[in-house]
Amino acid sequence: MLIMGVDPGYAICGYGLIEVRHNRFKPIDYGVIQTQARVPFEQRLLAIHDGMKALLNRYHPEVLAIEELFFNHNTTTAMGTAQARGVIVLTMAQANIPIYEYKPSQVKNAVTGYGRADKKQVQKMVQVLLNLPEIPQPDDAADALAVAIAQANRGLGSYGQKLKGGYQ
Amino acid sequence: MLIMGVDPGYAICGYGLIEVRHNRFKPIDYGVIQTQARVPFEQRLLAIHDGMKALLNRYHPEVLAIEELFFNHNTTTAMGTAQARGVIVLTMAQANIPIYEYKPSQVKNAVTGYGRADKKQVQKMVQVLLNLPEIPQPDDAADALAVAIAQANRGLGSYGQKLKGGYQ
Repeated sequence: MLIMGVDPGYAICGYGLIEVRHNRFKPIDYGVIQTQARVPFEQRLLAIHDGMKALLNRYHPEVLAIEELFFNHNTTTAMGTAQARGVIVLTMAQANIPIYEYKPSQVKNAVTGYGRADKKQVQKMVQVLLNLPEIPQPDDAADALAVAIAQANRGLGSYGQKLKGGYQ
Repeated sequence: MLIMGVDPGYAICGYGLIEVRHNRFKPIDYGVIQTQARVPFEQRLLAIHDGMKALLNRYHPEVLAIEELFFNHNTTTAMGTAQARGVIVLTMAQANIPIYEYKPSQVKNAVTGYGRADKKQVQKMVQVLLNLPEIPQPDDAADALAVAIAQANRGLGSYGQKLKGGYQ
C-alpha cells in the first residue's frame, strides 16, 4: 500500500510517500512544496493545489495521512496554515483519496512509542524505520514521513481517525 | 460592476452578489451554502467548492470580497472556518477573480459609517442600502452582502486590500 503523509503549511508544505508491505516501509519520495512570501496568498494556495495534484498524478497514493491542526494562539500563521490544509484536503477529496488525521502525540507515539518524544527523536526514528542514510531534510519532509508511518502503523494500534464531519 | 461578497464558514457559508452602477447598489442574489455535520469534513469542503463554482458559472462576478479571519481562541470551529476560507479563495483564484479582504471593522465602517457598529445595525443598513423589503436572512447572507458593499465603497474610501502574500 502506498501512503502519502502531508505536513500542511502555506510557505513550506512537507510531503512523504512510503510503500508498506508486510510491515516493512520503503520510502518512495519526500520533499516540500514551497511558496514565496512576495506572492499573493491566493496564488500560494493555487501553487499548493497544483503541487499536490502533480504528486497524486505521479504516484497515485491509496491514502492520505495529515496532522490535526492545533495552535495555542490565533496568529496569521495559524490562519494561513489552516487555509492551506483546507486546500490540501479538498485536493485529495477531489481525487477520492481517503484521508486520516492524527494528533501530534499520536504521530510521536506511532513512530517512537512515546507520545511526548521530542522532534529530534521522531526524525531520528523516521530515518531508522525507513532505512535512510541520514535524517530527511527539511524538517517538514521528515514530519510528513512521520505521519505517513503513523498511518502505516494504524493496523497495529488504534491511532488516528477519518476526518470528522463535526469540527465543532 | 458585479461584486460577490462571501462570509466564510464550513457549516454555513454566506454569499451575496450586488451590481454597482453610478454608486447605486442592486442586489442580484444572496443566500447560503450549507453542509451537514454528519458529512465527513472533506466532503463538506468539496460541497463548498462545488457550490462556489456553480455561483461563479451562473453570475460571473468581477471581484470577490471576503472578511479577514480573526478568532480569539483556537477552536476546532476556527480551524474549520479557516480551511473553508482556503477552499473559497482557491476556487476564486482558479477562476482568476481578484480577491479583496476586509477586517470586520472595515466592513462596519463601510456600511454604517461606524467601525464598532453592532451586528443588527449593519444588517439594517444592508437592507436600506440594497432597498430590500426586509433584513436578508440568514445572518450569514446579510454579512456576505455587507462585505460586498464594503468592496463597492472601496473607491470612495480606503477600505480593504488585496490579499497579502506574507500572512506572517
